[in-house]
Amino acid sequence: MLPPVVLGIDFGGTKTAMAVAEPTPGPRLGAATVPTHAAEGGRASLGRGLRAARALLDRVAPGREPIAVGVSTIGIPRDSGVDLAPNIPGWADLALAKEIQAAFPASEVRVETDVKAAARVEAVEGALQEADPGLYLNLGTGLAVAIVTKGEVIAGRNGAAGEIGYNLRRLADVGLAAGHRSILEDQVSGIGLLARAKEIHPDATGAKDLFAAASLDPRAADILREFTDELAFHLVNLAIAVDPARIAVGGGMVRSWPVLYAPLRRALDAAVPFPPELVQAAFPFDAPLAGALTLARAAVREAALAAPAESSTTSTTP
Amino acid sequence: MLPPVVLGIDFGGTKTAMAVAEPTPGPRLGAATVPTHAAEGGRASLGRGLRAARALLDRVAPGREPIAVGVSTIGIPRDSGVDLAPNIPGWADLALAKEIQAAFPASEVRVETDVKAAARVEAVEGALQEADPGLYLNLGTGLAVAIVTKGEVIAGRNGAAGEIGYNLRRLADVGLAAGHRSILEDQVSGIGLLARAKEIHPDATGAKDLFAAASLDPRAADILREFTDELAFHLVNLAIAVDPARIAVGGGMVRSWPVLYAPLRRALDAAVPFPPELVQAAFPFDAPLAGALTLARAAVREAALAAPAESSTTSTTP
Repeated sequence: MLPPVVLGIDFGGTKTAMAVAEPTPGPRLGAATVPTHAAEGGRASLGRGLRAARALLDRVAPGREPIAVGVSTIGIPRDSGVDLAPNIPGWADLALAKEIQAAFPASEVRVETDVKAAARVEAVEGALQEADPGLYLNLGTGLAVAIVTKGEVIAGRNGAAGEIGYNLRRLADVGLAAGHRSILEDQVSGIGLLARAKEIHPDATGAKDLFAAASLDPRAADILREFTDELAFHLVNLAIAVDPARIAVGGGMVRSWPVLYAPLRRALDAAVPFPPELVQAAFPFDAPLAGALTLARAAVREAALAAPAESSTTSTTP
Repeated sequence: MLPPVVLGIDFGGTKTAMAVAEPTPGPRLGAATVPTHAAEGGRASLGRGLRAARALLDRVAPGREPIAVGVSTIGIPRDSGVDLAPNIPGWADLALAKEIQAAFPASEVRVETDVKAAARVEAVEGALQEADPGLYLNLGTGLAVAIVTKGEVIAGRNGAAGEIGYNLRRLADVGLAAGHRSILEDQVSGIGLLARAKEIHPDATGAKDLFAAASLDPRAADILREFTDELAFHLVNLAIAVDPARIAVGGGMVRSWPVLYAPLRRALDAAVPFPPELVQAAFPFDAPLAGALTLARAAVREAALAAPAESSTTSTTP
């Protein structure tokens, strides 16, 4: 029998990314990405991701089964569904761990919120090493942060720490339910920026079109300034509350890092009593996937720790 | 020789509070308070506090010396001064630990930021027990919070975590240095509320006058609503970031708890995905002083732990 591998899958709002690797640290054997097509619903998206993962395994590790599968996902995975994941219709109703387990019945399965998985990888082997506290800011399809203290990500009482996409935007919104106000993620996120981009370029397909146009089109520049101002407002106040040594920024928007860095740096320097460092994440575009692989490898280590006990139990039972 | 005691002193923006207790947990032997008279400057205030502490010792524990002195203070104490303590002119330049040590040369001395000392006491034996994470909100002369995870207060890289009095208030302030904008504490604090109270009642002496007038005077009610709205805005966004199990509120304004509780409860319920509990602190009016006593007692325990090693060292040296 061939030696096993580990599989990591990151279910995002725009794409599902996956990678196969050896159970021990080292480079990936292969990786793939498929679009989420959120509008088709959660179950279709999950199925597409799982088929792509199986195809990837067959291609880069033929005959080798995953001993563990680590999964990172938008939202907060529970036993019976996923909380706070409105971007993919139906994702809320998926018992993600059970679905993954059914697809890989012989594997150890671990599931975690994407931004927390990303922050942990950055804390352990990325841009937040030695940063205590550290702050991970994810600027992708959505918006979230993770607070790291003493190398550990703060989960929160309900696993929902860092979900600042729900932040209040205006004093006038105080006391209004989420359905009756605009939440921060509506504006400060890839989705939010795309919506603004379409106002001036109806054929825009992503926030990147706005970044590209900003130097030529004053309307695009205005939208970007509103975006970075509002992002900076919330990042500054969070940095004051946490007093981090360093903020690491990941997510697709990091592709436009110079455009983001300058105004955020200026805002932090002006307002935070002890301004933290501000850097790109070490895995800016796939920290959640790297985190999923780390989860899978951690599961292997746990299983290896459990194995001697199990065999010792077996050996004492005739 | 009579057995020693411990002394706790809390240097606040309005008053200096102090208490004397046995080195082991138990009720206080006595306590006293003197006004800060901030306008007279830090050195005068420090001297007044130290004289009062000595008088208290002579009165409630005659002939017994403090084996340890725990001190909580506004601002962030450093070896050579106190950062972020603008409310008492000259406090920034006091080497607080050295000054206390000079006044009590035979005592172990510990100094800590007041709100963090308060949060630790609440976490260990007060309203934040079993709350992970927990949030302590101090509404006194100034404004600050402390984040508690796994029973420990997050200090921050520079000891400045939780100093949300410096928060940005408006999007338009992004990028402006602190001197060129209004900071949150200007508005949301005892000092801020007193300034507003004086607008309508020039002879007001404290925020309490505004709370008392709110049911009769619509102008007072408006000011209070603006106050609780802005406090709620920042508390909600912080609760979203931390996902605390519970928020405990301490500080002088807790005397008007019903007026504060209702709008904060409503705002948290409306906007936070998993609304935390909201309670009064167990030591609402003197948690920093309780924290100072806890610091002193911890110093005694550390000294007791160190003692055997020291005597063992002595015993091996002829």
